[in-house]
Amino acid sequence: MTRFKDLLIDDLERAVARFQRAFEGVTVEQANAFPAAEMAPQIKSMTWLLWHTAFVLDVQIAELAGTEWLYQQGWKENLPENKTKNPSWIHSLEEAQTITVDSFDNLFAYFEAARDQAVRYIQSLEESGLDDIVDESWTPAVTRGIRLVSTLDDVTMHSGQVFYARRLLGLTD
Amino acid sequence: MTRFKDLLIDDLERAVARFQRAFEGVTVEQANAFPAAEMAPQIKSMTWLLWHTAFVLDVQIAELAGTEWLYQQGWKENLPENKTKNPSWIHSLEEAQTITVDSFDNLFAYFEAARDQAVRYIQSLEESGLDDIVDESWTPAVTRGIRLVSTLDDVTMHSGQVFYARRLLGLTD
Repeated sequence: MTRFKDLLIDDLERAVARFQRAFEGVTVEQANAFPAAEMAPQIKSMTWLLWHTAFVLDVQIAELAGTEWLYQQGWKENLPENKTKNPSWIHSLEEAQTITVDSFDNLFAYFEAARDQAVRYIQSLEESGLDDIVDESWTPAVTRGIRLVSTLDDVTMHSGQVFYARRLLGLTD
Repeated sequence: MTRFKDLLIDDLERAVARFQRAFEGVTVEQANAFPAAEMAPQIKSMTWLLWHTAFVLDVQIAELAGTEWLYQQGWKENLPENKTKNPSWIHSLEEAQTITVDSFDNLFAYFEAARDQAVRYIQSLEESGLDDIVDESWTPAVTRGIRLVSTLDDVTMHSGQVFYARRLLGLTD
């Protein structure tokens, strides 16, 4: 646990494990539901949160690694289709409600594949590479280290939300 | 951004900033409320989430640093009192509902003081110290690095939840 990679990987593993715990005892019907849609249309379903988080992790890490998204390597056909032109992070309630599944198997397999891709990528890094500029479209420009942290931050933040989505179904932890 | 400390500090700053954004335009009455209490008694108020998260950050970092909690250094008198014997993470709905404020000023000042304490502590570390065992009560024993990651994970996870608590008030982002 002496290296930055161990810290980053531990951080990611906690968030993945929290998603897995959140889905314990949840049916697909429950996970696909938006139980707070009337009072809080921005609150997503558990299915949406898992799908979105796995996709963000996949895309951000693949872009850093300079490899093709896992999503484009055969996963797309087995995952809910985003039928709108909007990326998931600006989905309206109606758009988000189109993201449903009949089983969690593929979603979790995709999330775990994205996790494995991230772990392999982090393991491959040298500390000196964290300062590389990877995105000039922000001010200040985004370094590899900052993009890694922001990606893991997003996964962990959503792992908190998925527990609130679980509780809104009337389930306890 | 080449060192583990920069990654950890960036991670923490993102979560603190997310809390700050979540409270924009929220009244104390809204933040003290439990709008989903009937359907989801485990979902907390925004006030409770801010109070709990600041306290956890304070206590965990002070314990690592071997210093007195900020809470015991004058903050306690200015913060909501936990009148039960239960620590906050096992609060019942009724216990959580006792945590209210008339103003966010002290809560945010405490959170920011806890953030500053954490940043100073992280800056003081040497990489070799991350492997020190700091808690033998778990298997495997917890190292300083693992405790740091779990503490920041908790802050980030709650920063996601506070946005869901905001949305349950009928507010949009």
